[in-house]
Amino acid sequence: MKPHTTTTLIDELTQAVGAAHVLTGNAIPLQSCTDWFQTHTHVPLALVRPGTPVEVAQVMTICHRHGQPVTPQGGLTGLVAGAVPAENDIALSLARLNGIEEIDTAACTLTVLAGTPLQTAQDAARAAGLLLAVDLGARGSCQVGGNIATNAGGNRVIRYGMFRDQVLGLEAVLADGTVVCGLNKMLKNNAGYDLRQLFIGSEGTLGIVTRAVLRLHPQPQSCNTAWCTLPDYDTVVRFLRHAQRTLSGTLSAFEVMWPDFHELATTRIPGLRSPVNAHGLQVLIEMEGGEAGRDMAMFSNMLEAALEQGWLRDAAIAQSLKERESFWRLRDAVSEFPLMWAPYCGYDVSLPISSLGRFVDELQRALRDTFPHCEHVHFGHVGDSNLHVGVHIRPGHGVFPEDRIDACVYGIVRRYGGSISAEHGIGEHKKAYLSHSRTPQELALMRTIKHAMDPKNILNRGKVLA
Amino acid sequence: MKPHTTTTLIDELTQAVGAAHVLTGNAIPLQSCTDWFQTHTHVPLALVRPGTPVEVAQVMTICHRHGQPVTPQGGLTGLVAGAVPAENDIALSLARLNGIEEIDTAACTLTVLAGTPLQTAQDAARAAGLLLAVDLGARGSCQVGGNIATNAGGNRVIRYGMFRDQVLGLEAVLADGTVVCGLNKMLKNNAGYDLRQLFIGSEGTLGIVTRAVLRLHPQPQSCNTAWCTLPDYDTVVRFLRHAQRTLSGTLSAFEVMWPDFHELATTRIPGLRSPVNAHGLQVLIEMEGGEAGRDMAMFSNMLEAALEQGWLRDAAIAQSLKERESFWRLRDAVSEFPLMWAPYCGYDVSLPISSLGRFVDELQRALRDTFPHCEHVHFGHVGDSNLHVGVHIRPGHGVFPEDRIDACVYGIVRRYGGSISAEHGIGEHKKAYLSHSRTPQELALMRTIKHAMDPKNILNRGKVLA
Repeated sequence: MKPHTTTTLIDELTQAVGAAHVLTGNAIPLQSCTDWFQTHTHVPLALVRPGTPVEVAQVMTICHRHGQPVTPQGGLTGLVAGAVPAENDIALSLARLNGIEEIDTAACTLTVLAGTPLQTAQDAARAAGLLLAVDLGARGSCQVGGNIATNAGGNRVIRYGMFRDQVLGLEAVLADGTVVCGLNKMLKNNAGYDLRQLFIGSEGTLGIVTRAVLRLHPQPQSCNTAWCTLPDYDTVVRFLRHAQRTLSGTLSAFEVMWPDFHELATTRIPGLRSPVNAHGLQVLIEMEGGEAGRDMAMFSNMLEAALEQGWLRDAAIAQSLKERESFWRLRDAVSEFPLMWAPYCGYDVSLPISSLGRFVDELQRALRDTFPHCEHVHFGHVGDSNLHVGVHIRPGHGVFPEDRIDACVYGIVRRYGGSISAEHGIGEHKKAYLSHSRTPQELALMRTIKHAMDPKNILNRGKVLA
Repeated sequence: MKPHTTTTLIDELTQAVGAAHVLTGNAIPLQSCTDWFQTHTHVPLALVRPGTPVEVAQVMTICHRHGQPVTPQGGLTGLVAGAVPAENDIALSLARLNGIEEIDTAACTLTVLAGTPLQTAQDAARAAGLLLAVDLGARGSCQVGGNIATNAGGNRVIRYGMFRDQVLGLEAVLADGTVVCGLNKMLKNNAGYDLRQLFIGSEGTLGIVTRAVLRLHPQPQSCNTAWCTLPDYDTVVRFLRHAQRTLSGTLSAFEVMWPDFHELATTRIPGLRSPVNAHGLQVLIEMEGGEAGRDMAMFSNMLEAALEQGWLRDAAIAQSLKERESFWRLRDAVSEFPLMWAPYCGYDVSLPISSLGRFVDELQRALRDTFPHCEHVHFGHVGDSNLHVGVHIRPGHGVFPEDRIDACVYGIVRRYGGSISAEHGIGEHKKAYLSHSRTPQELALMRTIKHAMDPKNILNRGKVLA
C-alpha cells in the first residue's frame, strides 16, 4: 500500500470514529498485536475502535473501498490466534460496543451489543431472574460478539448447547459495510435461509457481529455435584447414559479426567486434594434442577443405582457450596498446566463418544512411543464428545517438538473421524490441519461461501482457510 | 428446450438410474405433480428416482451439464408447495434412498438415508432404547431428508429443538453433482464453517440432502399430561415460565388454544369433548421425565402451585394413557379444520412471546372488521413463539378472498416483527411475503449465497426467493 493511500485511509477512519479511536504505532496496546500465548505478534497499521454498529459499518465501507484487510477483535481471549492482525491490517476492536440493550423477561431474551463482556450479560440475565447458559473461564474478559464468532462452548454445553444455540437474532456488518440486521426474538423462524448460522463460528471471516438477541433460560433452583471414580471408559459412557436417562434434562456437567490428569493435578499443584481415594477415570457430574429437596433425592438415587450396578469405585457428593467449589477447582486446574508445565501444548479435539476411549488409549501409546520424555494429560466434556489433551516434554531433551506433537495428535484424530477443533476454532494455529477433519469438497464449499461474501478477501484474511 | 436435447437428457438419466426409474407423462403419479392442497399442479419433464446417493450425484451432474432445473421431492407432505415441479423440471424423488445405516448407542446417533420415513427412523431409535425427538403429524409419510430441508418442527420443540438441532452430520449433493459429505457424529465441531446449516431449512434450493447423522436422546421413562384453562394470555406466559422453572428441562409440550379454537373443536367435531368446563385460553401441558413416581409428584406440585397463584381456572390431569390420547385428539383437531371448513386458509407464523397475545387480539379484530362473515381459530406452540391461525368465510359470501386474508395476516405480522413462517417454510406459497419478515439486506445475502452455490439456478428454482 502506498503511503499516500495509507494517509487517506487513516484520515477517513479518523473522520468516521474520531481521532481518539484510531491508534497507530506505539499507541497500540501489545494485547491487540498478539494472541493469548504470544506466539504471533504483529503491529497493525492502526487499531480502530468504533463506538456503534453504524461506525463499524462506516469503517468497513472505507476499508472495503481501499481493499484494506481488517482483523476484528473481541476480548482477545481466543486460543488459536484468530484475532491477531497481519502487519498491514486494520485491527477493529469491538470493545466500545458495550451494553445490554434490552431484557425481555416474557420472551426470555437479552439483546446485547457485541463488545459486552460475557459476564456482564450473565449478570444482567441473573438480575432479571434468568440464566444466560453458556459459561467459560474467560467470562470476565471475553465478549459476546467473540463468543458468537467462535461458537464458544464451555462446561454446560451438555445441557444447553453451545453459543450457536443461544443466538436467536443477530446483526452483522459484511465486508462491504452492509448491515445485515436480523434481531429475531423467536425460537422458530423458517422464513428463508437462516443467515445467523453464517456468522456463528466463522471467526469473523464472513462478517462482524455487532448485536445479538440471546436466548435465556430459567434460573436453576438447585445444584447437586458429585465426584466419582470409574474403572474404565466404557463404564463412563454407561454411567453418562444412565445419568441422562434418570436425571432427564437436568444433567448440566459431565467432566471426565483420565488418571494422568488426576495424578498431575493432585500431586503437583499445591492446595488441590482429590475428593476420592480410588484410581481410575474421575468424573465430575452436576445437575441443576427446579426444586432443591426433590433434586437432591433424584441425584442420590441416580448415584446409588450406579453404585449398585458396580459402575462406581467411589463417589463423593458435595455437601456444601464450598465443597462444590473445591471439586471444580480440581477440574479447573487445567488453566494452570500451561504455566507450571512449560513448554506445553494443548489440544481441543472431538471424537464420536463411542470411540473416544480407544482414541485416548491409542494417543497415549503413540505419545509415549514417539516422545519418550513426554508427560500428558487427558480430560474433557465427554458428554459433548469433547476431549482436551495437554502434552509436555521434560526439560533437557532438546527443542520442544510442537509440530511433531501436532502431527501425532491430529493424525490419530483424522483416523478416528474426529474434529481437530471441538470448541476453540481454527484461527491461525490450526488451519494447516483443517483438511484432517474436512473433505476437499467441504473445504471448496467453505471457499465458495467466503469468496461470495468477501470477494476482496479483507475480513480476517488468512484465518480458518489457508 | 429442444426435443433433441430433451431426448439426450432423458437417455443420460436413464443410463444413470435405470429405465424403471425415469418416469414420464402419464406414468408420473399425480402426487409428484402437485402439492398437499393441490393448488399448483404441473407435470414435470420426468420423475427420476435414483437409488443411492451416488446416483443422486450422477443425476445432478447430468442436469447441471444440461442447465436442467430439478425439483427435489421427499415425502410430499409440505404445506407451502415447496416440492411442486415446474412443467419443464425434472422431479427428483428421494424415496428409494430408504434405510437406517447405523445406530450407535454409545454415541447416541442414528445414520439414515434421506428418503427414510420419519416414523421408520423413530421406530429404529425406540427399538434401540433411544428417542428421535422431533415428531409431527405426517410422521408416516414425511421423509427425514425433507424434514431436514424444511427444518421441521412439531410438538416437542420446546424440549428438544427443531430438526436443525437433531442433525449432527449431513451428506448433500450440490447443484453441480459434487457430494459434500460431513457425516459428523460429534456434538461439538468447530473445524471451519458449519456447512450443515446451509442445507437445513433451505428447502432444497442449495443442495439435496442424501444422508444424515441424527442425534438421539434417552427414551423418557414417564409422561404426565394436563389440560388447563387460564383467564388471559399474560397469565399463560406466567404459567409457562413457572412450569419451565419448576419442571426444569422436562417440559415437553405447551400447546395453547384460544377460545375460538376450543369452541369450534368441541361443538363442531363429533366425538370431541373438552376435559374442562371453564372458558378462557386452553393449555395442553406435558412433561416427560426419568422416573414415573417422582415425576407425577413434581407435575402435580407444579399445577397446585399455579392453582394457588390463581392462574388456573380449571385443570385436569390425564389419569390414563387413554385420557392423554383424548387430550391430544382435541389439540390435533386442527387437521380436520381444512376439510370440514372449506374454503379455509391456514397460517404458521411466529411472534416474540411477549407480544403474541396482543398480536392475536389485534388480528382477531382486524379479521372481523375486514371480513364480517369470517370465522377463525388461533392455536399454537406458544413456548416456541409459534402461532397457527385458520380462517374460513361462511358460504354465500362470494369468492374466498385468500389474497386479502394473506395481506391482512402478514401485514400485522410485519408490524409486530414476527415471521411469516415459523415451521412450514416458504416454498412457493409464501415467497411473495418473504420481505415482510426479512430486510432487503437479508434477502440480498440469501441471493448471494444461492447464486454462489447454484449459479445456473437449477435447484428448486423459484422457491423461497422470488
